[in-house]
Amino acid sequence: MKLLSYTHQGRDGWGALDASGQGVIDLGRRLPAIAGVRELLAGGAPALAQAREAWTGAMADHALADVQLDLPVREPRRIFCIGVNYAHRNAEYKDGSELPRYPSIFMRVPDSFSAHGAPLLQPAESQQLDYEGEIGIVIGQGGRRIPRETALAHIGGLTCINEGTIRDWVHHAKFNVTQGKNWFRSGAIGPWLVTADEYPDGFGKLRVQTRVNGETRQDDTTEHLMFDFAYLIHYLSTFTPLLPGDVIATGTPIGAGIRFDPPRFLQPGDVVEVEVTGVGVLRNVVEAEPR
Amino acid sequence: MKLLSYTHQGRDGWGALDASGQGVIDLGRRLPAIAGVRELLAGGAPALAQAREAWTGAMADHALADVQLDLPVREPRRIFCIGVNYAHRNAEYKDGSELPRYPSIFMRVPDSFSAHGAPLLQPAESQQLDYEGEIGIVIGQGGRRIPRETALAHIGGLTCINEGTIRDWVHHAKFNVTQGKNWFRSGAIGPWLVTADEYPDGFGKLRVQTRVNGETRQDDTTEHLMFDFAYLIHYLSTFTPLLPGDVIATGTPIGAGIRFDPPRFLQPGDVVEVEVTGVGVLRNVVEAEPR
Repeated sequence: MKLLSYTHQGRDGWGALDASGQGVIDLGRRLPAIAGVRELLAGGAPALAQAREAWTGAMADHALADVQLDLPVREPRRIFCIGVNYAHRNAEYKDGSELPRYPSIFMRVPDSFSAHGAPLLQPAESQQLDYEGEIGIVIGQGGRRIPRETALAHIGGLTCINEGTIRDWVHHAKFNVTQGKNWFRSGAIGPWLVTADEYPDGFGKLRVQTRVNGETRQDDTTEHLMFDFAYLIHYLSTFTPLLPGDVIATGTPIGAGIRFDPPRFLQPGDVVEVEVTGVGVLRNVVEAEPR
Repeated sequence: MKLLSYTHQGRDGWGALDASGQGVIDLGRRLPAIAGVRELLAGGAPALAQAREAWTGAMADHALADVQLDLPVREPRRIFCIGVNYAHRNAEYKDGSELPRYPSIFMRVPDSFSAHGAPLLQPAESQQLDYEGEIGIVIGQGGRRIPRETALAHIGGLTCINEGTIRDWVHHAKFNVTQGKNWFRSGAIGPWLVTADEYPDGFGKLRVQTRVNGETRQDDTTEHLMFDFAYLIHYLSTFTPLLPGDVIATGTPIGAGIRFDPPRFLQPGDVVEVEVTGVGVLRNVVEAEPR
């Protein structure tokens, strides 16, 4: 299922895309005991089975075009982002460093992301808004000290992430990229999360692509990850209990705008698309933020 | 007022310390329209005036010793931590670097902190649990792009923070300290927040001290901050809207355990106290975390 959160005529709802991909089935109305996508994920296999049963054969309640999508899980409690993770990208830094032993991790606040279809904001304070297409893991069943061997069972689903970045602010501090990674609505998550059961062949050969105005800028597969999904879940859960709905942005391939000479930062009107195998396309248009 | 969140006989409540400092006045019962400390802060001056009126002359509902304190604001939405901020500490690094132009910022998740009186956890994975005493700002009225000149008006109150750290994990990655700063219950916040009106002389000469088993390890004042409270609120709010209840850990003085030769990390049974002018003492005992 493609699970989504949305607003329709001013009312918040949650549900799933119908089989045609053009309609939204309101699961919140059919399963009133489940408050939203986070609670559905927290409910584990029994709740997902209920949702699938309600979904099967249901008529769409709304046209997809008539709803305003929200982040797939509204207000994720924690959004962990993995720094350099595609092996080619480590080489791109050309600093002669060996492969890292552990992942680099930073966090983002939920409102640093826009939903699918909402504007990506270029702030007045910087001309260096950049894209970073990524595969997002959404945690289903939570846990602490999860062994690598069973870690994939904690994936609730996958989504597309544009881990949008204000490049000059990334370098404000010697360490820690927080201020370059948390500008209001500088990134995006969506359009929905695809439940893990739709990846019967696993997560080892997924493709992530980023396009700007139709031109492919990033294109790589999870075969090249230095830290695969199972390791990331294992490592993060060593120090912090993962919770249902937590998001892990798994890192971006080479080809961000900063890597061009001269750099190709995003401008108002640019259309940014991130496509992930099995999920679809996250699409946002850049706007200059009103001050 | 000293605002606090607590559990009493299994029931969550919020309120304020009474004038004696030994009793808790249940403000949640008296002001049922206000759900908690975060909502009180979000209500601004009118809500605070209501709370003060309910508090004045009220008899304590519980002995302080009979309640279990929670973080002053339960589940802060965002906890921003400032890296090296006391001028002496920058010198302590001895790397010849000049004073930084901008603050270093990282984030912590709420459950990386314990409440006053609850154990600080030393995980089985590391012997390097360390203390960092800090002054915590709790945001009252939120805002974006807050000018430095009016920033102090956004302080809801102050609290004590032990920004406890697992030192070896801080260095797992080249950049970003997330994994060393987010171990479950490795730090503490509390015991309460003291409302900003109790600082009529401002925040320029506040003292923060850290003691381990009664021995003073850290002792400095906000006179030595490189980035003062007004600047931090201004800077953070440039990129992200600050929200009521958000916490800013404003940096730690010299004297953390890692700076001794040999290092003096915390051991099970150690008593860690952080004292901040006008707030009081945050006290926690170290325990080895059961696996």
